[in-house]
Amino acid sequence: MKITIIDYDATQFQEKEVKTIDECFPFKEKPTVTWINIDGLHRIDLIEQLGTHFGLHPLVMEDIVNTDQRPKIEDFVTYLFLVLKRLSYSSHDSDVVSEQISLILGPTFLLSFQEAPGDEFDPIRDRIRSSKGRIRQMGVDYLAYTLIDAIIDNYFVLLEQIGDRIEEIEDVLVANPRPETLQTLHTLKREMIVLRKSIWPLREVITRLERWETPLIQQATTIYLRDVYDHTIQVIDAIETYRDMLSGMLDIYLSSVSNRMNEVMKVLTIIATIFIPLTFIVGIYGMNFNMPELQWPWAYPYVFYVVLFVIILVMITYFRRKKWL
Amino acid sequence: MKITIIDYDATQFQEKEVKTIDECFPFKEKPTVTWINIDGLHRIDLIEQLGTHFGLHPLVMEDIVNTDQRPKIEDFVTYLFLVLKRLSYSSHDSDVVSEQISLILGPTFLLSFQEAPGDEFDPIRDRIRSSKGRIRQMGVDYLAYTLIDAIIDNYFVLLEQIGDRIEEIEDVLVANPRPETLQTLHTLKREMIVLRKSIWPLREVITRLERWETPLIQQATTIYLRDVYDHTIQVIDAIETYRDMLSGMLDIYLSSVSNRMNEVMKVLTIIATIFIPLTFIVGIYGMNFNMPELQWPWAYPYVFYVVLFVIILVMITYFRRKKWL
Amino acid sequence: MKITIIDYDATQFQEKEVKTIDECFPFKEKPTVTWINIDGLHRIDLIEQLGTHFGLHPLVMEDIVNTDQRPKIEDFVTYLFLVLKRLSYSSHDSDVVSEQISLILGPTFLLSFQEAPGDEFDPIRDRIRSSKGRIRQMGVDYLAYTLIDAIIDNYFVLLEQIGDRIEEIEDVLVANPRPETLQTLHTLKREMIVLRKSIWPLREVITRLERWETPLIQQATTIYLRDVYDHTIQVIDAIETYRDMLSGMLDIYLSSVSNRMNEVMKVLTIIATIFIPLTFIVGIYGMNFNMPELQWPWAYPYVFYVVLFVIILVMITYFRRKKWL
Amino acid sequence: MKITIIDYDATQFQEKEVKTIDECFPFKEKPTVTWINIDGLHRIDLIEQLGTHFGLHPLVMEDIVNTDQRPKIEDFVTYLFLVLKRLSYSSHDSDVVSEQISLILGPTFLLSFQEAPGDEFDPIRDRIRSSKGRIRQMGVDYLAYTLIDAIIDNYFVLLEQIGDRIEEIEDVLVANPRPETLQTLHTLKREMIVLRKSIWPLREVITRLERWETPLIQQATTIYLRDVYDHTIQVIDAIETYRDMLSGMLDIYLSSVSNRMNEVMKVLTIIATIFIPLTFIVGIYGMNFNMPELQWPWAYPYVFYVVLFVIILVMITYFRRKKWL
Amino acid sequence: MKITIIDYDATQFQEKEVKTIDECFPFKEKPTVTWINIDGLHRIDLIEQLGTHFGLHPLVMEDIVNTDQRPKIEDFVTYLFLVLKRLSYSSHDSDVVSEQISLILGPTFLLSFQEAPGDEFDPIRDRIRSSKGRIRQMGVDYLAYTLIDAIIDNYFVLLEQIGDRIEEIEDVLVANPRPETLQTLHTLKREMIVLRKSIWPLREVITRLERWETPLIQQATTIYLRDVYDHTIQVIDAIETYRDMLSGMLDIYLSSVSNRMNEVMKVLTIIATIFIPLTFIVGIYGMNFNMPELQWPWAYPYVFYVVLFVIILVMITYFRRKKWL
Repeated sequence: MKITIIDYDATQFQEKEVKTIDECFPFKEKPTVTWINIDGLHRIDLIEQLGTHFGLHPLVMEDIVNTDQRPKIEDFVTYLFLVLKRLSYSSHDSDVVSEQISLILGPTFLLSFQEAPGDEFDPIRDRIRSSKGRIRQMGVDYLAYTLIDAIIDNYFVLLEQIGDRIEEIEDVLVANPRPETLQTLHTLKREMIVLRKSIWPLREVITRLERWETPLIQQATTIYLRDVYDHTIQVIDAIETYRDMLSGMLDIYLSSVSNRMNEVMKVLTIIATIFIPLTFIVGIYGMNFNMPELQWPWAYPYVFYVVLFVIILVMITYFRRKKWL
Repeated sequence: MKITIIDYDATQFQEKEVKTIDECFPFKEKPTVTWINIDGLHRIDLIEQLGTHFGLHPLVMEDIVNTDQRPKIEDFVTYLFLVLKRLSYSSHDSDVVSEQISLILGPTFLLSFQEAPGDEFDPIRDRIRSSKGRIRQMGVDYLAYTLIDAIIDNYFVLLEQIGDRIEEIEDVLVANPRPETLQTLHTLKREMIVLRKSIWPLREVITRLERWETPLIQQATTIYLRDVYDHTIQVIDAIETYRDMLSGMLDIYLSSVSNRMNEVMKVLTIIATIFIPLTFIVGIYGMNFNMPELQWPWAYPYVFYVVLFVIILVMITYFRRKKWL
Repeated sequence: MKITIIDYDATQFQEKEVKTIDECFPFKEKPTVTWINIDGLHRIDLIEQLGTHFGLHPLVMEDIVNTDQRPKIEDFVTYLFLVLKRLSYSSHDSDVVSEQISLILGPTFLLSFQEAPGDEFDPIRDRIRSSKGRIRQMGVDYLAYTLIDAIIDNYFVLLEQIGDRIEEIEDVLVANPRPETLQTLHTLKREMIVLRKSIWPLREVITRLERWETPLIQQATTIYLRDVYDHTIQVIDAIETYRDMLSGMLDIYLSSVSNRMNEVMKVLTIIATIFIPLTFIVGIYGMNFNMPELQWPWAYPYVFYVVLFVIILVMITYFRRKKWL
Repeated sequence: MKITIIDYDATQFQEKEVKTIDECFPFKEKPTVTWINIDGLHRIDLIEQLGTHFGLHPLVMEDIVNTDQRPKIEDFVTYLFLVLKRLSYSSHDSDVVSEQISLILGPTFLLSFQEAPGDEFDPIRDRIRSSKGRIRQMGVDYLAYTLIDAIIDNYFVLLEQIGDRIEEIEDVLVANPRPETLQTLHTLKREMIVLRKSIWPLREVITRLERWETPLIQQATTIYLRDVYDHTIQVIDAIETYRDMLSGMLDIYLSSVSNRMNEVMKVLTIIATIFIPLTFIVGIYGMNFNMPELQWPWAYPYVFYVVLFVIILVMITYFRRKKWL
Repeated sequence: MKITIIDYDATQFQEKEVKTIDECFPFKEKPTVTWINIDGLHRIDLIEQLGTHFGLHPLVMEDIVNTDQRPKIEDFVTYLFLVLKRLSYSSHDSDVVSEQISLILGPTFLLSFQEAPGDEFDPIRDRIRSSKGRIRQMGVDYLAYTLIDAIIDNYFVLLEQIGDRIEEIEDVLVANPRPETLQTLHTLKREMIVLRKSIWPLREVITRLERWETPLIQQATTIYLRDVYDHTIQVIDAIETYRDMLSGMLDIYLSSVSNRMNEVMKVLTIIATIFIPLTFIVGIYGMNFNMPELQWPWAYPYVFYVVLFVIILVMITYFRRKKWL
């Protein structure tokens, strides 16, 4: 468990990594903006210490450590509690991984709890350190906005990766559909279900954050939240579009399988309908009857060249007219 | 029918199992928190006695004993009436069983009616007995919350069992799809319908409980109800996710059946298209015509080794190019 | 057309069947509860007479005799107009029949118009006659509630019958799916559409009846209407569940048809792939070439026992490995 | 372009067909009810003249002549503008034709613009002429209601025709499904899409007309509009029901096609599995080996009668047990 | 990047193309209507200069240059910000291309930013130049309306092109369905998804523009916006109709593929069931048994003409009765 504290206002800035929870306490009442970030949630006792000092409700602390929450926002008057999800491709099994990030937005402090360390927030730290942009001029609510924005911007990266995979499969689907393609389609569909579950509730979270009349969010910040809302809608749009595309691709797959079957059946039917009657005809002259035809001088070439080839020709003409050849 | 009474406040506690309904009556007016639990609903006369004494509306008593209600909440000003569902796997036929639990929340008493005895409430009894947590400090509305929470927490256990079964089938589906797999998929889908029916209305029940401005629910308890609401949404999310997954698995099943059919047809087609023309050719030389070829010294090996093997080679090349082999 | 009048209050009761419309008129102003029931709607002139006397709007009278209305409720200030549907299985062609029942709820009178005579209201008449329950103590709005409740209770009977038929088909579906099963599935689905159409609007009708602030409905009665509302939701739930189940059963049917096809194809493929090559081999030795093998002493048993059985064995092994046998 | 003017109140009535637009102008200010009907919309200049005189907004005149509007209502304070659709079967290509009817409802005048002349309004003209019913007593808003009612009543005629066609196809579907049946199903589905598009918005149009508080609609007329609303809902219900039925019929069609395929395959499989092994056996004794069996006196009848018939019997028994015969 | 300025009121008009951003600045405060159009968004620095001078929020400038926004509207009190989409068929790869057009509507100025130059606005420029219509009399909000109207009118052109392609495919589908047809169907479906995504949000944009009470939009203009709203709904209706039609066409395609398979199978089955038994019969008399029949004088014609033709006749009769021929 790693605890980092960043404390700043327009004129001054300090950043430190602390070993004990106690070192965080003095920042609670400081009028400057304080951002305390905790990576790793296994030390439940420490989180409870921190929570108790910052006046968090026991249920909030429970929700922070139970990482299967849906994205949500709750207003506890003196602070806001937000649950968000970081989504990323795990490197080894190419599956979407969902990690929980909880934010506590107080009047002058922001606590962020991450299930696992990530790098989305690094550019924000840089911006604070170098006093780039307006971040050092703004309050703690603007800091919360930048964190949320960073998390949602990260979804676009994930969506792009998924979009690439969908395109890859689409090409394979046209060229050479195989049972494995279906398996991949199925996996992608399931990932979409996971994504939807993590991102749909976000829409309401951001709307509430923007609309709630809480002194914790200043008027100037709501315009930025509206921007975050737009991004959320874009992400949801993309997910719905991908879902529609995957459904369409399943139809393509199924109908291409049935087309191939059709082709196989046609080959069988053509071969069988040409040769089965022919075999019957040659069978006739294999009978041990005393057939007068057998003695005719031109019987063999007649049967062989005329009858058989006429039958083959008729069949082929028939198939051509049926557009099977 | 088993009646147990638990009566407590912050300082004192008593618990007893009573034989007659009359023994419950004195607790109605007592200012301490009283929890009367009734297991088994077949003694309608006793329930009516109890209801009449506690001032319940006849329709409420009807709903308590008719166990096919949907989850619902009703406000009778002096008490709230809640209907909930306990869901569990029956041990002998692996089907989801739904049992009704009705709660009457009065100013100082809570009546709970269970269709069949269950063990979800045992930890709550322990907490009351041992005065663990805040339960002994809180009122009867908090007790109601803990009961509802226990019922909903139990759904997660059920969902996990169903999740395991879905995963099992998923593995079978890839390895060796069989008609029985479809049957199991169908059973799971039907269980999902039952679950949905029991859990969807819960969402509204909890919302109302949280939002209604009734003196029976104290302000401090609503925050706990919001937590219960979150859990309900999680359960509903999980059910919807499972439903989506089961639909996807049905698609996989159907397309894998049609893939297998395709494979069978290919084998048939390959064998038939190779051997039917060959049989025709050997049939030719089985005719009893006076064929000059029969007398040629190398005719037999020529037909046998050259013609036949050339045909087989051509066919195999063709199939390979078509990617059937 | 049969007209029956029941007039009662807590102390007195009279019931009579009248021949002429005029006999109903005196009851309009009587302060006691009057229930006038009309069976059969073909005498439009008489209904118009009655309507004119009781001050009904011409459109109301039109809606009463045109029996293809949807369930609805309308508030005409001095009276409420309700249209409901009686649903039942017709005895001779096992199809759902929908009949219209219209209610006019005035301050002291209730008019009920039935398309065809039914027996759902008989227990209510008995209750009034024998002064059983609270009905004689309550006003005309309570009478209206009991009629609506009787109609909706009747839906459960119908739903049970449909549920039985669905279960029957489900068993057949597993054991021996046939085209007729599909036909029955289709019929059930269509009946569900009819039911939905008749019952969905009821939800709104009851809600309005409960919520509207009309002096015609007393406060004490709304609690009973809430109960009726719950029943309506249960009926709708059941219909939706049946619809879901029927959809699932269609999937089962289709996939079981394609499974059977698969099985048929496997038998064909196995037989054909074993015997077509064998026939080719025996065809070879039916050629009239001068084959040296024919003269070898062990040629026949060699070909017959060794070659053929080896081929059969290889084939069977192959099929077993493919899990076709 | 044909212009007819009907002007009436309770006591007097005049009707005339006019040649020039100018003749309509005096009726604008007349306190009697004036109904000006225009058939044919190709003389845009005349419509503009009329519109300018009656004070219509330029956009309204544009909407009147562009006949691809959706049904809508707009309130221009001094007049209401309604767009409706007449739907009918075209006689020569059995397709649904949608024609636009626009209404301008002023304080004392009603302008109706029809894309093509129709006969739905004839009974209304008769009622005005003969002073039948209440129409001559009522204002111009009641006239507007009767026109709207006539248009919607006409939808029922169309729906009945479509219902008949659906029933016809349903019978064919059971007896002898053919590709053309599918084509007809598809056409009907497309017609349903057209109908929906034309009728769905009507629901909102009528609701607004009923709810808007405009002096142009008198209180007494709203009750009639509620009736029109009910009819609209009935039409929408019918369309939805037909859509559901058509979807169900597509399922029936597809599964009956696959049933027939199944049957064909069974015949092939039965014939092939019986005769292919038999052909192999007779092939054996066609080999030119020196087989000792050939010399046995009872060999031929033994092979022929015993072996072959035993095989046939075994096969038939097998198929019967599989329920293929 | 091309910057053009049009400045006008009822009496005067000027138009010029400027090279530097600075030339736009004097127009900001001028009371006349000023329309500044920027084609090309790659010079972000210039756009920022312009934005800063006209007092635009940094987020607005970001949204203008990031061209993957959804259509939206935002109210910044002193100006409105609109994002719209121009949709067109790209000429070389027949795919729908979406380009962003952003509008800034101030009290006396309108800024329009186009991703790529288009020609929809040319007729508007002509109307301003020639003082045709009311545009020179109206304010800047009317100018904004004409631009929005031009963009939406353009959608109808696109929809017509798509409608033509759908009709083409529909004809092919009936005549000769091929895998490529499916591919085209899939492409069209995907284009519909893109269209929907671009046009659905427009509905809300226009509604807000019409309903918001902002001094930037005059009362007289809202009636024109209502007209634009109607057009938007028409576009959305058309898209939904096309989607429904494409789904229906996929069903047609799939069932026509399975019909063709059926036909192929029937041919195979007919040929095989006629000739396989016949081959068996001629095989019998190819056996080298000492069969007495072989010696009968009429045996050969009997077998040949009678037995075989009887079998063929029976088979054909059977197939005809089954309606396969």
